[in-house]
Amino acid sequence: MSKQTWKAGTLLAPAPPVLVSCGDAEKPNLITVAWCGTVCSQPPMLSVSIRPERYSYGLIKRSGVFVVNLPTQALLRAVDWCGVKSGRDVDKFAAMHLTAAPAGTVDTVLLAESPVNLECQVRQVLPLGSHDLFLAEITAVDVDEDLLDDKGKLHLDRAGLIAYNHGEYYALGRRLGSFGCSVRKKPRRQGR
Amino acid sequence: MSKQTWKAGTLLAPAPPVLVSCGDAEKPNLITVAWCGTVCSQPPMLSVSIRPERYSYGLIKRSGVFVVNLPTQALLRAVDWCGVKSGRDVDKFAAMHLTAAPAGTVDTVLLAESPVNLECQVRQVLPLGSHDLFLAEITAVDVDEDLLDDKGKLHLDRAGLIAYNHGEYYALGRRLGSFGCSVRKKPRRQGR
Repeated sequence: MSKQTWKAGTLLAPAPPVLVSCGDAEKPNLITVAWCGTVCSQPPMLSVSIRPERYSYGLIKRSGVFVVNLPTQALLRAVDWCGVKSGRDVDKFAAMHLTAAPAGTVDTVLLAESPVNLECQVRQVLPLGSHDLFLAEITAVDVDEDLLDDKGKLHLDRAGLIAYNHGEYYALGRRLGSFGCSVRKKPRRQGR
Repeated sequence: MSKQTWKAGTLLAPAPPVLVSCGDAEKPNLITVAWCGTVCSQPPMLSVSIRPERYSYGLIKRSGVFVVNLPTQALLRAVDWCGVKSGRDVDKFAAMHLTAAPAGTVDTVLLAESPVNLECQVRQVLPLGSHDLFLAEITAVDVDEDLLDDKGKLHLDRAGLIAYNHGEYYALGRRLGSFGCSVRKKPRRQGR
């Protein structure tokens, strides 16, 4: 494989283009964030990076709380639209016909139409340059019961999640394997 | 949609299960990290979270450098295997028949078989709990020329990247749209 060396750029992919909800029931807001990720297992923590000039930045900085709502194919238009519009100018929930419901463990709203909501409490804010990094502890997870089987096991593959890949949105495709598949013994074939 | 509230957990998805290369040419290593993400656009920065007990943790902490190698379907077995094995016990590059090539801007190795390598310089290490967060500036990007068109534009969709979704690996599927698609005027149809 022959390679070109480019100057530095943000090419980590695929990323989850999550809808972050913030504000209060009176004036809730949504912002799309692809610069995000899990950062710790115990305690469960994630990070979202937001430009200080964004309207949601002040809402989250002042309240110290937000909710990460996982993005689905059904929410694609809202995912894109809430990334390019500002909550200063428009009520994004109303414009996208979406529902702000109270979160259970933090004093803000979640996106009812998202099948998985991660309620978050900010622990630290680090200015990095164009973006500030919000490090937050996940305080509860709300899960759509339709994604659970009879035993209560979550089947996140049924959610229709989407991925952001170098400026484009993709559905998740074929399942390739599960964690540990490279070291699991294959079951012996019956017969020949 | 009816929901259950669960205790906190790391359910942010999909995530990129990247292969992080570190160490030197004499004793290079690979570790798979799904707890990662872009954290800043200017300067371009990303984060990876690693448990202090992992072998790669010490290599990266001491050297202050690593490379994030994007994961492809062709690398699936290595992605999984390098996440469950330790470089203390085995030469992962040799075991997986992979090639460690020198990075251009940082004093460590990259994974030659990965189509996109993000060379990284650690700026800050934050202990969070089970994992430490490495915040790093991207110093260069190496891109497979086969992913570039005649004009030098990168077609990352051709790379066959994979996503990690709640314990399972997935191919990227159908393209759903591009950033800004919700606000772009549709071209007027010619004729009827």
